[in-house]
Amino acid sequence: MTFTYRAPVRYLEVDQQGVVFNMWYLAYMDEAFGEFVAHTTPWADIFALGADVQLVHSEQDWSGSLHWGDTVHVDVSLEKLGRTSFTIGFAIHSGDSSRRALTASTVYVCIAKDGSGKMEPPPILVDALRFQNAAGS
Amino acid sequence: MTFTYRAPVRYLEVDQQGVVFNMWYLAYMDEAFGEFVAHTTPWADIFALGADVQLVHSEQDWSGSLHWGDTVHVDVSLEKLGRTSFTIGFAIHSGDSSRRALTASTVYVCIAKDGSGKMEPPPILVDALRFQNAAGS
Amino acid sequence: MTFTYRAPVRYLEVDQQGVVFNMWYLAYMDEAFGEFVAHTTPWADIFALGADVQLVHSEQDWSGSLHWGDTVHVDVSLEKLGRTSFTIGFAIHSGDSSRRALTASTVYVCIAKDGSGKMEPPPILVDALRFQNAAGS
Amino acid sequence: MTFTYRAPVRYLEVDQQGVVFNMWYLAYMDEAFGEFVAHTTPWADIFALGADVQLVHSEQDWSGSLHWGDTVHVDVSLEKLGRTSFTIGFAIHSGDSSRRALTASTVYVCIAKDGSGKMEPPPILVDALRFQNAAGS
Repeated sequence: MTFTYRAPVRYLEVDQQGVVFNMWYLAYMDEAFGEFVAHTTPWADIFALGADVQLVHSEQDWSGSLHWGDTVHVDVSLEKLGRTSFTIGFAIHSGDSSRRALTASTVYVCIAKDGSGKMEPPPILVDALRFQNAAGS
Repeated sequence: MTFTYRAPVRYLEVDQQGVVFNMWYLAYMDEAFGEFVAHTTPWADIFALGADVQLVHSEQDWSGSLHWGDTVHVDVSLEKLGRTSFTIGFAIHSGDSSRRALTASTVYVCIAKDGSGKMEPPPILVDALRFQNAAGS
Repeated sequence: MTFTYRAPVRYLEVDQQGVVFNMWYLAYMDEAFGEFVAHTTPWADIFALGADVQLVHSEQDWSGSLHWGDTVHVDVSLEKLGRTSFTIGFAIHSGDSSRRALTASTVYVCIAKDGSGKMEPPPILVDALRFQNAAGS
Repeated sequence: MTFTYRAPVRYLEVDQQGVVFNMWYLAYMDEAFGEFVAHTTPWADIFALGADVQLVHSEQDWSGSLHWGDTVHVDVSLEKLGRTSFTIGFAIHSGDSSRRALTASTVYVCIAKDGSGKMEPPPILVDALRFQNAAGS
Protein backbone atom coordinates (compact mmCIF):
# COMPACT_ATOMS: atom_id res chain seq x y z
CA MET A 1 0.00 0.00 0.00
CA THR A 2 1.31 3.38 -1.03
CA PHE A 3 -0.02 6.82 -0.31
CA THR A 4 -1.38 8.22 -3.56
CA TYR A 5 -2.38 11.80 -4.27
CA ARG A 6 -4.83 12.33 -7.13
CA ALA A 7 -5.86 15.46 -9.02
CA PRO A 8 -7.13 16.16 -12.53
CA VAL A 9 -4.67 17.73 -14.96
CA ARG A 10 -5.72 21.35 -15.39
CA TYR A 11 -6.21 22.58 -18.94
CA LEU A 12 -3.79 25.45 -18.31
CA GLU A 13 -0.99 23.04 -17.36
CA VAL A 14 -0.84 21.62 -20.88
CA ASP A 15 1.48 23.41 -23.30
CA GLN A 16 1.31 23.78 -27.05
CA GLN A 17 2.95 20.37 -27.50
CA GLY A 18 -0.18 18.96 -25.83
CA VAL A 19 1.61 17.67 -22.72
CA VAL A 20 1.83 18.91 -19.14
CA PHE A 21 4.66 21.46 -18.93
CA ASN A 22 7.58 20.30 -16.77
CA MET A 23 7.27 22.73 -13.85
CA TRP A 24 3.77 21.54 -12.94
CA TYR A 25 5.23 18.19 -11.85
CA LEU A 26 6.86 20.08 -8.97
CA ALA A 27 3.46 21.51 -8.11
CA TYR A 28 2.00 18.00 -8.04
CA MET A 29 4.89 16.74 -5.89
CA ASP A 30 4.50 19.60 -3.43
CA GLU A 31 0.78 18.99 -3.02
CA ALA A 32 1.31 15.24 -2.78
CA PHE A 33 3.96 15.58 -0.08
CA GLY A 34 1.76 18.03 1.84
CA GLU A 35 -1.14 15.60 1.87
CA PHE A 36 1.10 12.60 2.61
CA VAL A 37 2.14 14.23 5.89
CA ALA A 38 -1.28 15.75 6.64
CA HIS A 39 -2.84 12.32 6.24
CA THR A 40 -1.28 11.49 9.65
CA THR A 41 -0.34 14.81 11.25
CA PRO A 42 -1.82 18.26 10.66
CA TRP A 43 0.83 20.71 9.45
CA ALA A 44 -0.42 23.20 12.06
CA ASP A 45 0.70 20.79 14.80
CA ILE A 46 4.17 20.58 13.26
CA PHE A 47 4.41 24.36 12.94
CA ALA A 48 3.21 24.72 16.55
CA LEU A 49 6.32 22.80 17.63
CA GLY A 50 8.47 25.38 15.89
CA ALA A 51 9.37 23.16 12.96
CA ASP A 52 9.06 23.56 9.21
CA VAL A 53 10.60 21.82 6.22
CA GLN A 54 12.71 23.20 3.42
CA LEU A 55 13.42 21.66 0.04
CA VAL A 56 17.17 21.41 -0.62
CA HIS A 57 17.48 18.99 -3.52
CA SER A 58 15.19 17.46 -6.09
CA GLU A 59 15.72 15.35 -9.17
CA GLN A 60 13.27 14.21 -11.82
CA ASP A 61 13.37 11.63 -14.59
CA TRP A 62 10.69 11.88 -17.25
CA SER A 63 9.69 8.67 -19.00
CA GLY A 64 6.30 9.70 -20.33
CA SER A 65 3.83 12.53 -20.36
CA LEU A 66 0.45 13.62 -19.04
CA HIS A 67 -2.39 15.09 -21.05
CA TRP A 68 -5.58 17.07 -20.58
CA GLY A 69 -8.23 14.65 -19.33
CA ASP A 70 -5.75 12.57 -17.33
CA THR A 71 -5.94 12.24 -13.58
CA VAL A 72 -2.51 12.80 -12.07
CA HIS A 73 -1.57 10.07 -9.61
CA VAL A 74 1.42 10.72 -7.35
CA ASP A 75 2.63 7.72 -5.35
CA VAL A 76 4.56 9.03 -2.34
CA SER A 77 7.01 7.10 -0.16
CA LEU A 78 9.77 7.73 2.37
CA GLU A 79 13.09 6.77 0.81
CA LYS A 80 15.50 7.77 3.55
CA LEU A 81 15.29 9.28 7.02
CA GLY A 82 18.40 11.08 8.27
CA ARG A 83 19.02 13.06 11.43
CA THR A 84 17.74 16.42 10.19
CA SER A 85 16.83 15.55 6.59
CA PHE A 86 14.74 13.00 4.76
CA THR A 87 14.16 11.92 1.19
CA ILE A 88 10.75 11.44 -0.37
CA GLY A 89 10.21 9.40 -3.53
CA PHE A 90 7.54 10.23 -6.07
CA ALA A 91 6.15 8.18 -8.96
CA ILE A 92 3.76 10.07 -11.21
CA HIS A 93 1.43 8.39 -13.70
CA SER A 94 -2.12 8.64 -14.98
CA GLY A 95 -3.50 5.60 -13.20
CA ASP A 96 -1.37 2.71 -14.44
CA SER A 97 1.70 2.76 -12.18
CA SER A 98 3.65 0.58 -14.61
CA ARG A 99 3.58 3.43 -17.15
CA ARG A 100 5.24 6.26 -15.29
CA ALA A 101 5.43 9.79 -16.59
CA LEU A 102 7.95 10.80 -13.91
CA THR A 103 10.13 9.28 -11.21
CA ALA A 104 11.48 11.81 -8.74
CA SER A 105 13.01 12.24 -5.33
CA THR A 106 13.26 15.27 -3.12
CA VAL A 107 15.41 15.93 -0.08
CA TYR A 108 13.85 18.07 2.64
CA VAL A 109 15.59 19.50 5.69
CA CYS A 110 13.74 20.12 8.91
CA ILE A 111 14.33 23.69 10.04
CA ALA A 112 13.36 25.77 13.04
CA LYS A 113 10.73 28.36 12.27
CA ASP A 114 12.63 30.88 14.41
CA GLY A 115 15.44 30.97 11.85
CA SER A 116 17.98 29.19 14.07
CA GLY A 117 18.69 26.57 11.40
CA LYS A 118 18.39 22.81 11.04
CA MET A 119 16.67 20.73 13.71
CA GLU A 120 15.65 17.14 14.21
CA PRO A 121 12.11 16.60 12.97
CA PRO A 122 9.60 16.40 15.84
CA PRO A 123 8.28 12.87 16.54
CA ILE A 124 4.85 13.66 15.06
CA LEU A 125 6.52 14.49 11.74
CA VAL A 126 8.64 11.34 11.92
CA ASP A 127 5.48 9.36 12.62
CA ALA A 128 3.83 10.84 9.55
CA LEU A 129 6.85 10.05 7.38
CA ARG A 130 7.19 6.49 8.73
CA PHE A 131 3.57 5.49 8.91
CA GLN A 132 3.06 5.02 5.20
CA ASN A 133 6.28 3.13 4.91
CA ALA A 134 5.26 0.75 7.65
CA ALA A 135 1.88 0.42 6.00
CA GLY A 136 3.50 -0.09 2.64
CA SER A 137 4.84 -3.30 1.15
CA MET B 1 2.89 59.07 -23.48
CA THR B 2 1.70 55.99 -21.69
CA PHE B 3 3.49 53.79 -19.22
CA THR B 4 4.14 50.46 -20.92
CA TYR B 5 5.28 47.25 -19.26
CA ARG B 6 7.02 44.73 -21.52
CA ALA B 7 7.83 41.04 -21.01
CA PRO B 8 8.28 38.07 -23.33
CA VAL B 9 5.46 35.51 -23.39
CA ARG B 10 6.71 32.46 -21.52
CA TYR B 11 6.45 29.13 -23.31
CA LEU B 12 4.55 27.68 -20.36
CA GLU B 13 1.84 30.36 -20.62
CA VAL B 14 0.70 29.07 -24.00
CA ASP B 15 -1.96 26.35 -23.95
CA GLN B 16 -2.68 23.54 -26.37
CA GLN B 17 -4.69 25.91 -28.57
CA GLY B 18 -1.40 27.77 -29.11
CA VAL B 19 -2.50 30.98 -27.35
CA VAL B 20 -1.72 32.48 -23.95
CA PHE B 21 -4.16 31.01 -21.41
CA ASN B 22 -6.56 33.59 -19.96
CA MET B 23 -5.31 33.71 -16.35
CA TRP B 24 -1.83 34.87 -17.36
CA TYR B 25 -3.29 38.20 -18.48
CA LEU B 26 -3.98 38.88 -14.79
CA ALA B 27 -0.35 38.07 -14.06
CA TYR B 28 0.74 40.58 -16.72
CA MET B 29 -1.64 43.21 -15.34
CA ASP B 30 -0.40 42.72 -11.79
CA GLU B 31 3.24 43.08 -12.81
CA ALA B 32 2.43 46.06 -15.04
CA PHE B 33 0.56 47.88 -12.25
CA GLY B 34 3.37 47.13 -9.81
CA GLU B 35 5.96 48.67 -12.12
CA PHE B 36 3.69 51.59 -13.07
CA VAL B 37 3.64 52.67 -9.40
CA ALA B 38 7.27 51.74 -8.69
CA HIS B 39 8.37 53.85 -11.66
CA THR B 40 7.61 56.88 -9.43
CA THR B 41 7.41 55.59 -5.87
CA PRO B 42 9.02 52.50 -4.33
CA TRP B 43 6.41 50.16 -2.90
CA ALA B 44 8.48 49.94 0.30
CA ASP B 45 7.84 53.66 0.89
CA ILE B 46 4.09 53.12 0.50
CA PHE B 47 4.14 50.14 2.88
CA ALA B 48 6.23 52.17 5.35
CA LEU B 49 3.31 54.60 5.58
CA GLY B 50 1.04 51.72 6.62
CA ALA B 51 -0.75 51.49 3.29
CA ASP B 52 -1.31 48.67 0.84
CA VAL B 53 -3.70 48.09 -2.04
CA GLN B 54 -6.29 45.42 -2.58
CA LEU B 55 -7.94 44.37 -5.82
CA VAL B 56 -11.75 44.46 -5.51
CA HIS B 57 -12.99 44.35 -9.11
CA SER B 58 -11.57 43.54 -12.49
CA GLU B 59 -13.02 43.09 -15.93
CA GLN B 60 -11.42 41.93 -19.15
CA ASP B 61 -12.43 41.99 -22.80
CA TRP B 62 -10.47 39.78 -25.15
CA SER B 63 -10.25 40.87 -28.78
CA GLY B 64 -7.20 38.90 -29.85
CA SER B 65 -4.55 36.55 -28.58
CA LEU B 66 -0.86 36.33 -27.74
CA HIS B 67 1.54 33.62 -28.87
CA TRP B 68 4.91 32.17 -27.99
CA GLY B 69 7.54 34.53 -29.37
CA ASP B 70 5.44 37.65 -28.76
CA THR B 71 6.51 40.37 -26.38
CA VAL B 72 3.61 41.29 -24.11
CA HIS B 73 3.04 45.05 -23.98
CA VAL B 74 0.77 46.35 -21.23
CA ASP B 75 -0.20 50.01 -21.52
CA VAL B 76 -1.21 51.25 -18.07
CA SER B 77 -3.21 54.36 -17.22
CA LEU B 78 -5.20 55.86 -14.36
CA GLU B 79 -8.87 55.84 -15.29
CA LYS B 80 -10.42 57.17 -12.10
CA LEU B 81 -9.22 58.34 -8.71
CA GLY B 82 -11.76 58.12 -5.86
CA ARG B 83 -11.39 58.85 -2.16
CA THR B 84 -10.13 55.40 -1.11
CA SER B 85 -10.23 53.58 -4.43
CA PHE B 86 -8.90 54.04 -7.94
CA THR B 87 -9.33 52.39 -11.32
CA ILE B 88 -6.46 51.39 -13.56
CA GLY B 89 -6.91 50.72 -17.28
CA PHE B 90 -4.86 48.15 -19.17
CA ALA B 91 -4.43 47.61 -22.91
CA ILE B 92 -2.48 44.49 -23.80
CA HIS B 93 -1.01 43.85 -27.24
CA SER B 94 2.12 42.46 -28.84
CA GLY B 95 3.61 45.76 -29.97
CA ASP B 96 0.99 47.26 -32.25
CA SER B 97 -1.41 49.03 -29.89
CA SER B 98 -4.10 49.18 -32.59
CA ARG B 99 -4.38 45.39 -32.48
CA ARG B 100 -5.27 44.70 -28.86
CA ALA B 101 -5.43 41.26 -27.36
CA LEU B 102 -7.12 42.55 -24.20
CA THR B 103 -8.71 45.68 -22.79
CA ALA B 104 -9.18 45.58 -19.02
CA SER B 105 -9.77 47.70 -15.97
CA THR B 106 -9.19 46.95 -12.34
CA VAL B 107 -10.44 48.70 -9.22
CA TYR B 108 -8.07 48.78 -6.27
CA VAL B 109 -8.87 49.92 -2.75
CA CYS B 110 -6.23 51.45 -0.52
CA ILE B 111 -6.18 49.63 2.82
CA ALA B 112 -4.31 50.01 6.07
CA LYS B 113 -1.71 47.32 6.62
CA ASP B 114 -2.78 47.09 10.28
CA GLY B 115 -6.10 45.57 9.23
CA SER B 116 -8.18 48.61 10.20
CA GLY B 117 -9.75 48.81 6.74
CA LYS B 118 -9.93 51.33 3.91
CA MET B 119 -7.84 54.48 3.98
CA GLU B 120 -7.09 57.38 1.69
CA PRO B 121 -4.03 56.61 -0.40
CA PRO B 122 -0.93 58.43 0.85
CA PRO B 123 0.18 61.38 -1.34
CA ILE B 124 3.20 59.48 -2.69
CA LEU B 125 0.87 56.81 -4.06
CA VAL B 126 -1.44 59.45 -5.53
CA ASP B 127 1.59 61.08 -7.12
CA ALA B 128 2.58 57.77 -8.67
CA LEU B 129 -0.93 57.21 -10.02
CA ARG B 130 -1.26 60.77 -11.36
CA PHE B 131 2.20 61.29 -12.74
CA GLN B 132 1.81 59.10 -15.78
CA ASN B 133 -1.53 60.60 -16.57
CA ALA B 134 -0.10 64.08 -16.42
CA ALA B 135 2.77 62.93 -18.58
CA GLY B 136 0.39 61.19 -20.94
CA SER B 137 -1.65 62.71 -23.72
CA MET C 1 -29.20 22.37 -6.72
CA THR C 2 -26.13 23.98 -8.21
CA PHE C 3 -23.17 22.38 -9.89
CA THR C 4 -20.19 22.82 -7.59
CA TYR C 5 -16.54 22.21 -8.43
CA ARG C 6 -14.23 21.51 -5.49
CA ALA C 7 -10.43 21.51 -5.21
CA PRO C 8 -7.97 22.16 -2.40
CA VAL C 9 -6.10 25.48 -2.49
CA ARG C 10 -2.54 24.69 -3.55
CA TYR C 11 0.23 26.02 -1.33
CA LEU C 12 1.84 27.68 -4.34
CA GLU C 13 -1.31 29.71 -5.07
CA VAL C 14 -1.00 31.65 -1.82
CA ASP C 15 1.07 34.83 -1.99
CA GLN C 16 3.13 36.57 0.66
CA GLN C 17 0.02 38.30 1.99
CA GLY C 18 -1.21 34.79 2.89
CA VAL C 19 -4.14 34.80 0.44
CA VAL C 20 -4.74 33.15 -2.93
CA PHE C 21 -3.30 35.42 -5.64
CA ASN C 22 -5.96 36.89 -7.94
CA MET C 23 -5.10 35.08 -11.18
CA TRP C 24 -5.72 31.63 -9.69
CA TYR C 25 -9.43 32.42 -9.45
CA LEU C 26 -9.47 32.34 -13.27
CA ALA C 27 -7.83 28.92 -13.12
CA TYR C 28 -10.54 27.72 -10.73
CA MET C 29 -13.27 29.17 -12.97
CA ASP C 30 -11.83 27.52 -16.06
CA GLU C 31 -11.65 24.11 -14.40
CA ALA C 32 -15.12 24.54 -12.91
CA PHE C 33 -16.67 25.46 -16.27
CA GLY C 34 -14.91 22.53 -17.93
CA GLU C 35 -16.32 20.07 -15.42
CA PHE C 36 -19.77 21.71 -15.45
CA VAL C 37 -20.08 20.91 -19.16
CA ALA C 38 -18.30 17.54 -18.97
CA HIS C 39 -20.72 16.47 -16.24
CA THR C 40 -23.32 16.14 -19.03
CA THR C 41 -21.40 16.05 -22.30
CA PRO C 42 -17.81 14.98 -22.95
CA TRP C 43 -15.77 17.80 -24.49
CA ALA C 44 -14.51 15.34 -27.12
CA ASP C 45 -18.09 14.99 -28.41
CA ILE C 46 -18.39 18.77 -28.72
CA PHE C 47 -15.05 19.05 -30.51
CA ALA C 48 -16.07 16.17 -32.81
CA LEU C 49 -18.93 18.36 -34.02
CA GLY C 50 -16.44 21.04 -35.02
CA ALA C 51 -17.26 23.35 -32.13
CA ASP C 52 -15.16 24.96 -29.43
CA VAL C 53 -15.67 27.85 -27.01
CA GLN C 54 -13.72 31.04 -26.59
CA LEU C 55 -13.70 33.39 -23.66
CA VAL C 56 -14.50 36.97 -24.71
CA HIS C 57 -15.37 38.78 -21.47
CA SER C 58 -14.98 38.13 -17.78
CA GLU C 59 -15.56 40.20 -14.68
CA GLN C 60 -14.77 39.45 -11.07
CA ASP C 61 -15.77 41.00 -7.75
CA TRP C 62 -13.74 40.02 -4.73
CA SER C 63 -15.48 40.12 -1.36
CA GLY C 64 -13.20 37.84 0.61
CA SER C 65 -10.16 35.66 0.31
CA LEU C 66 -9.03 32.04 0.29
CA HIS C 67 -6.19 30.56 2.30
CA TRP C 68 -3.94 27.53 2.39
CA GLY C 69 -5.95 24.67 3.87
CA ASP C 70 -9.23 25.86 2.33
CA THR C 71 -11.15 23.81 -0.19
CA VAL C 72 -12.16 26.00 -3.12
CA HIS C 73 -15.84 25.64 -3.97
CA VAL C 74 -16.99 27.07 -7.29
CA ASP C 75 -20.75 27.19 -7.80
CA VAL C 76 -21.43 27.30 -11.54
CA SER C 77 -24.65 28.34 -13.27
CA LEU C 78 -25.90 29.42 -16.67
CA GLU C 79 -26.81 33.11 -16.52
CA LYS C 80 -27.74 33.78 -20.13
CA LEU C 81 -27.94 31.81 -23.34
CA GLY C 82 -27.72 33.82 -26.56
CA ARG C 83 -27.56 32.71 -30.20
CA THR C 84 -23.80 32.15 -30.40
CA SER C 85 -22.71 33.21 -26.92
CA PHE C 86 -23.59 32.38 -23.33
CA THR C 87 -22.79 33.73 -19.89
CA ILE C 88 -21.70 31.57 -16.99
CA GLY C 89 -21.92 32.76 -13.38
CA PHE C 90 -19.42 31.71 -10.73
CA ALA C 91 -19.57 32.03 -6.93
CA ILE C 92 -16.37 31.05 -5.17
CA HIS C 93 -16.15 30.33 -1.46
CA SER C 94 -14.52 27.91 0.94
CA GLY C 95 -17.61 25.88 1.78
CA ASP C 96 -20.06 28.42 3.22
CA SER C 97 -21.75 29.93 0.15
CA SER C 98 -22.99 32.90 2.19
CA ARG C 99 -19.38 34.03 2.65
CA ARG C 100 -18.16 34.47 -0.89
CA ALA C 101 -14.59 35.21 -1.82
CA LEU C 102 -15.53 36.01 -5.42
CA THR C 103 -18.55 36.57 -7.62
CA ALA C 104 -17.80 36.42 -11.31
CA SER C 105 -19.32 36.00 -14.73
CA THR C 106 -17.76 35.03 -18.01
CA VAL C 107 -19.05 35.33 -21.55
CA TYR C 108 -18.06 32.55 -23.95
CA VAL C 109 -18.61 32.48 -27.69
CA CYS C 110 -19.08 29.24 -29.54
CA ILE C 111 -16.67 29.09 -32.45
CA ALA C 112 -15.99 26.68 -35.30
CA LYS C 113 -12.78 24.73 -34.87
CA ASP C 114 -12.03 25.22 -38.58
CA GLY C 115 -11.47 28.92 -37.99
CA SER C 116 -14.60 30.06 -39.85
CA GLY C 117 -15.82 32.09 -36.87
CA LYS C 118 -18.83 32.10 -34.55
CA MET C 119 -21.41 29.35 -34.72
CA GLU C 120 -24.51 28.30 -32.81
CA PRO C 121 -23.57 25.89 -30.03
CA PRO C 122 -24.43 22.28 -30.92
CA PRO C 123 -27.48 20.87 -29.07
CA ILE C 124 -25.33 18.64 -26.85
CA LEU C 125 -23.52 21.73 -25.56
CA VAL C 126 -26.81 23.57 -25.05
CA ASP C 127 -28.09 20.53 -23.15
CA ALA C 128 -25.03 20.61 -20.93
CA LEU C 129 -25.49 24.32 -20.25
CA ARG C 130 -29.22 24.01 -19.61
CA PHE C 131 -29.29 20.81 -17.63
CA GLN C 132 -27.92 22.24 -14.41
CA ASN C 133 -30.18 25.22 -14.67
CA ALA C 134 -33.23 23.02 -15.09
CA ALA C 135 -32.01 20.90 -12.22
CA GLY C 136 -31.31 24.02 -10.18
CA SER C 137 -33.75 26.09 -8.20
CA MET D 1 31.59 35.25 -20.43
CA THR D 2 28.42 33.36 -19.69
CA PHE D 3 24.99 33.71 -21.23
CA THR D 4 22.72 35.20 -18.58
CA TYR D 5 18.93 35.45 -18.70
CA ARG D 6 17.36 38.13 -16.52
CA ALA D 7 13.76 38.69 -15.41
CA PRO D 8 12.13 40.33 -12.39
CA VAL D 9 10.61 38.00 -9.79
CA ARG D 10 6.85 38.21 -10.19
CA TYR D 11 4.85 38.98 -7.07
CA LEU D 12 2.72 35.89 -7.67
CA GLU D 13 5.78 33.61 -7.60
CA VAL D 14 6.46 34.38 -3.94
CA ASP D 15 4.72 32.12 -1.44
CA GLN D 16 3.57 32.80 2.09
CA GLN D 17 7.06 32.11 3.42
CA GLY D 18 8.13 35.18 1.40
CA VAL D 19 10.36 33.26 -1.02
CA VAL D 20 9.94 32.17 -4.64
CA PHE D 21 8.11 28.82 -4.68
CA ASN D 22 10.24 25.95 -5.97
CA MET D 23 8.45 25.20 -9.24
CA TRP D 24 9.07 28.68 -10.65
CA TYR D 25 12.79 27.90 -10.86
CA LEU D 26 11.90 25.42 -13.61
CA ALA D 27 10.02 28.19 -15.38
CA TYR D 28 13.11 30.41 -15.16
CA MET D 29 15.34 27.59 -16.43
CA ASP D 30 13.03 26.88 -19.36
CA GLU D 31 12.94 30.52 -20.42
CA ALA D 32 16.70 30.86 -19.93
CA PHE D 33 17.45 27.80 -22.06
CA GLY D 34 15.06 29.00 -24.77
CA GLU D 35 16.82 32.37 -24.99
CA PHE D 36 20.28 30.80 -24.74
CA VAL D 37 19.60 28.89 -27.96
CA ALA D 38 17.62 31.68 -29.65
CA HIS D 39 20.51 34.05 -29.01
CA THR D 40 22.32 32.19 -31.84
CA THR D 41 19.66 30.25 -33.74
CA PRO D 42 15.92 30.96 -34.04
CA TRP D 43 13.86 28.05 -32.75
CA ALA D 44 11.77 28.23 -35.94
CA ASP D 45 14.88 27.28 -37.94
CA ILE D 46 15.45 24.26 -35.70
CA PHE D 47 11.81 23.18 -35.98
CA ALA D 48 11.97 23.67 -39.77
CA LEU D 49 14.65 20.97 -39.87
CA GLY D 50 12.26 18.56 -38.17
CA ALA D 51 13.97 18.71 -34.78
CA ASP D 52 12.75 19.53 -31.30
CA VAL D 53 14.10 18.95 -27.79
CA GLN D 54 12.62 17.06 -24.89
CA LEU D 55 13.56 17.30 -21.26
CA VAL D 56 14.40 13.88 -19.78
CA HIS D 57 16.21 14.62 -16.52
CA SER D 58 16.67 17.58 -14.26
CA GLU D 59 18.18 18.09 -10.84
CA GLN D 60 18.24 21.12 -8.60
CA ASP D 61 20.15 22.10 -5.47
CA TRP D 62 18.83 25.02 -3.51
CA SER D 63 21.35 27.03 -1.50
CA GLY D 64 19.42 30.25 -1.09
CA SER D 65 16.21 31.96 -2.02
CA LEU D 66 14.77 34.73 -4.17
CA HIS D 67 12.37 37.43 -3.06
CA TRP D 68 9.93 39.94 -4.46
CA GLY D 69 11.96 42.84 -5.83
CA ASP D 70 14.87 40.63 -6.90
CA THR D 71 15.90 40.27 -10.51
CA VAL D 72 16.37 36.61 -11.35
CA HIS D 73 19.68 35.96 -13.09
CA VAL D 74 20.12 32.56 -14.75
CA ASP D 75 23.63 31.78 -15.96
CA VAL D 76 23.38 29.13 -18.68
CA SER D 77 26.17 26.90 -19.98
CA LEU D 78 26.64 23.70 -21.95
CA GLU D 79 27.92 21.00 -19.60
CA LYS D 80 28.01 18.00 -21.92
CA LEU D 81 27.22 17.30 -25.55
CA GLY D 82 26.39 13.68 -26.43
CA ARG D 83 25.26 12.12 -29.70
CA THR D 84 21.52 12.74 -29.28
CA SER D 85 21.43 14.39 -25.86
CA PHE D 86 23.08 17.31 -24.10
CA THR D 87 23.26 18.69 -20.59
CA ILE D 88 22.72 22.32 -19.72
CA GLY D 89 23.92 23.83 -16.44
CA PHE D 90 22.05 26.61 -14.66
CA ALA D 91 23.16 28.89 -11.83
CA ILE D 92 20.41 31.11 -10.46
CA HIS D 93 21.05 34.14 -8.27
CA SER D 94 19.83 37.68 -7.80
CA GLY D 95 22.82 39.44 -9.32
CA ASP D 96 25.77 38.29 -7.21
CA SER D 97 26.80 34.97 -8.77
CA SER D 98 28.79 34.02 -5.67
CA ARG D 99 25.53 33.84 -3.70
CA ARG D 100 23.53 31.27 -5.59
CA ALA D 101 19.92 30.44 -4.89
CA LEU D 102 20.02 27.37 -7.12
CA THR D 103 22.45 25.19 -9.03
CA ALA D 104 20.80 22.90 -11.54
CA SER D 105 21.40 20.78 -14.59
CA THR D 106 19.00 19.46 -17.16
CA VAL D 107 19.41 16.74 -19.78
CA TYR D 108 17.61 17.30 -23.06
CA VAL D 109 17.21 14.80 -25.88
CA CYS D 110 16.91 15.91 -29.48
CA ILE D 111 13.85 14.30 -31.05
CA ALA D 112 12.28 14.27 -34.49
CA LYS D 113 9.10 16.31 -34.70
CA ASP D 114 7.51 13.55 -36.81
CA GLY D 115 7.46 11.25 -33.79
CA SER D 116 10.13 8.87 -35.10
CA GLY D 117 12.24 9.24 -31.94
CA LYS D 118 15.71 10.49 -31.04
CA MET D 119 17.90 12.17 -33.61
CA GLU D 120 21.26 13.91 -33.71
CA PRO D 121 20.80 17.63 -33.15
CA PRO D 122 21.08 19.62 -36.40
CA PRO D 123 24.33 21.60 -36.78
CA ILE D 124 22.58 24.94 -36.17
CA LEU D 125 21.44 23.69 -32.76
CA VAL D 126 24.92 22.36 -31.98
CA ASP D 127 26.33 25.74 -32.98
CA ALA D 128 23.93 27.45 -30.62
CA LEU D 129 24.87 25.13 -27.76
CA ARG D 130 28.63 25.42 -28.43
CA PHE D 131 28.89 29.10 -29.21
CA GLN D 132 28.44 30.33 -25.67
CA ASN D 133 30.88 27.81 -24.37
CA ALA D 134 33.52 28.88 -26.86
CA ALA D 135 32.79 32.47 -26.03
CA GLY D 136 32.75 31.65 -22.33
CA SER D 137 35.44 31.53 -19.64
